[in-house]
Amino acid sequence: MSLEQYTKTLLPEIEKELQAQVSRLDESHTRLFHEMLSYHMGWTGEGAGREAAGKRIRPLMLLLATASFEGDWRLALPAAAAVELVHNFSLVHDDVQDNSAKRRGRPTVWKKWGIPMAINAGDALFVISNQAIMDLSKLHPAQTVVRASTILFDTCLDLTRGQFMDMSYEERMDLTIDDYWPMVGGKTSALLSACPLLGALLGNASLEAQESYRNFGFHLGQAFQIQDDILGIWGDEAHTGKSATSDLVEGKNSLPILYALGKGGRFASRWNQGPIEAREVRSLAAQLEAEGARAFADEMSLKETEKALGFLEEANPGGSAGDAMLELANILLQRNQ
Amino acid sequence: MSLEQYTKTLLPEIEKELQAQVSRLDESHTRLFHEMLSYHMGWTGEGAGREAAGKRIRPLMLLLATASFEGDWRLALPAAAAVELVHNFSLVHDDVQDNSAKRRGRPTVWKKWGIPMAINAGDALFVISNQAIMDLSKLHPAQTVVRASTILFDTCLDLTRGQFMDMSYEERMDLTIDDYWPMVGGKTSALLSACPLLGALLGNASLEAQESYRNFGFHLGQAFQIQDDILGIWGDEAHTGKSATSDLVEGKNSLPILYALGKGGRFASRWNQGPIEAREVRSLAAQLEAEGARAFADEMSLKETEKALGFLEEANPGGSAGDAMLELANILLQRNQ
Repeated sequence: MSLEQYTKTLLPEIEKELQAQVSRLDESHTRLFHEMLSYHMGWTGEGAGREAAGKRIRPLMLLLATASFEGDWRLALPAAAAVELVHNFSLVHDDVQDNSAKRRGRPTVWKKWGIPMAINAGDALFVISNQAIMDLSKLHPAQTVVRASTILFDTCLDLTRGQFMDMSYEERMDLTIDDYWPMVGGKTSALLSACPLLGALLGNASLEAQESYRNFGFHLGQAFQIQDDILGIWGDEAHTGKSATSDLVEGKNSLPILYALGKGGRFASRWNQGPIEAREVRSLAAQLEAEGARAFADEMSLKETEKALGFLEEANPGGSAGDAMLELANILLQRNQ
Repeated sequence: MSLEQYTKTLLPEIEKELQAQVSRLDESHTRLFHEMLSYHMGWTGEGAGREAAGKRIRPLMLLLATASFEGDWRLALPAAAAVELVHNFSLVHDDVQDNSAKRRGRPTVWKKWGIPMAINAGDALFVISNQAIMDLSKLHPAQTVVRASTILFDTCLDLTRGQFMDMSYEERMDLTIDDYWPMVGGKTSALLSACPLLGALLGNASLEAQESYRNFGFHLGQAFQIQDDILGIWGDEAHTGKSATSDLVEGKNSLPILYALGKGGRFASRWNQGPIEAREVRSLAAQLEAEGARAFADEMSLKETEKALGFLEEANPGGSAGDAMLELANILLQRNQ
């Protein structure tokens, strides 16, 4: 099977599992609560559908990892739902924290139902992710469930760490690229690392292969985030679906920006004077590039990509699922091509 | 040992376990993050100490339950930390949702560090509660850990359900006491029910005794909340530590109020006209009492108390820990005496 064929087979099963998990709230006293989660997941409300749901990359990676060790991916579905629910819990809270009005082209949960409800909806997605991972106990020995849950919860703490750093950086004037790696390691790479690791664990891969897959996911996450950072400043809006200028205007602590802040040149002095306005974006992006920030980010992206692919080779996934995993990684790593 | 002696022995061990759990964030890049959690837990910052920490009733109940079946309470400490962390996660998010500036006499986390940071601090307390419950795997068979985690996570979903109902009631004009029970069952009783249940499980109690303890905790929670509701309208500020008038002014959906709303009398028509002002509180409290709301709440409280004590007797906890549990229940159920 090709990645496309896997995706066609797996995506409906992932959605079915996610809907079954979220249906825990589908009761008489909590209908609207259930609706909030269904809306965020992309199933209901105006604009519902594939676009609103997102790509489900994390559960796909997890299930491909299981299948690549000749494990039965059906037995990993609760874990696949769990990682997607964790991702979405963090998005719902992120949107409140960043004051973002839109997500995947639609009003965010807090924009529709207010901040208190959005906090609680995010909490519920998180709780249900925990319940989903415990559902593995119907399919796996208790020891495996304990190991999988421990991996997931450690990952979740990394997520809150990364989120803390990201938010605390907003008030700091002394940032350098050394502050970038732990933040992005928590915010992006931790969960992308947990996906192939959990998949390998549930596919009964050797500890060595699990470790290789963990490293593969981590560096894939790093490379993916760096590319996202590059696109956030120099990207094409048509390709990324979001305003290419937003990272400068939004004051995001992305790699090119932290690189230039560490250099302390013209870009850094402008940045430290206060918020960037839309009309400055074109010249500041050029200034960033002139100071070497784009070349540096390109280089780091390439390095992380090579590491990721090296670890994938080391994991040595088999069969068509292994090929599909490589294909998925290549798509993630070359989004703008 | 008396309850007082148990408390003296257990509280320092509970605090030690809690601090060890929260210390996961005590790293170079997340010092301030760790400080936020330590502050909320009552360990650091202005006004730190016993008063700021709260009573730790939930972990105490859990450990007493373990000890009352001749289990070693030390082996239940990670679970005791977990329930207290869940309680505190919900408090941090509650304070944001309710716009509360003070908690246990001190500025709330969001008041000190802003809403985005407070959401993340609550998330972290929740994640750490999950990690704490998984730490049971160092002390118990994996199957016990899976059972304990499942109980905890089901309880957490109940918490978000109760929170949803409480918030959604703010906009409704058609509330009756039928809307009270599922809300308070989620917000208060679910976690108080999980504490003795988890303690009994970790003390290797029979399934029957676990079930009795679960019911004991649930009805204890109901009775406790009803008493809190009564005090919130007719209580003495010196005894409760919070303004006795606040439930009317804050528009809280407490039992006496929902009772009167269901009656549709004079209180209900005033309530449905808009927020109560401080100068109206005395006469409205008298009106509520005249409409039978206080007598009804007293009756319900007594019923729930009797149920709780009946289930405690059925659980038949042994030794001094069993006596201490009864003593703790009586203190909780007769707070104003």
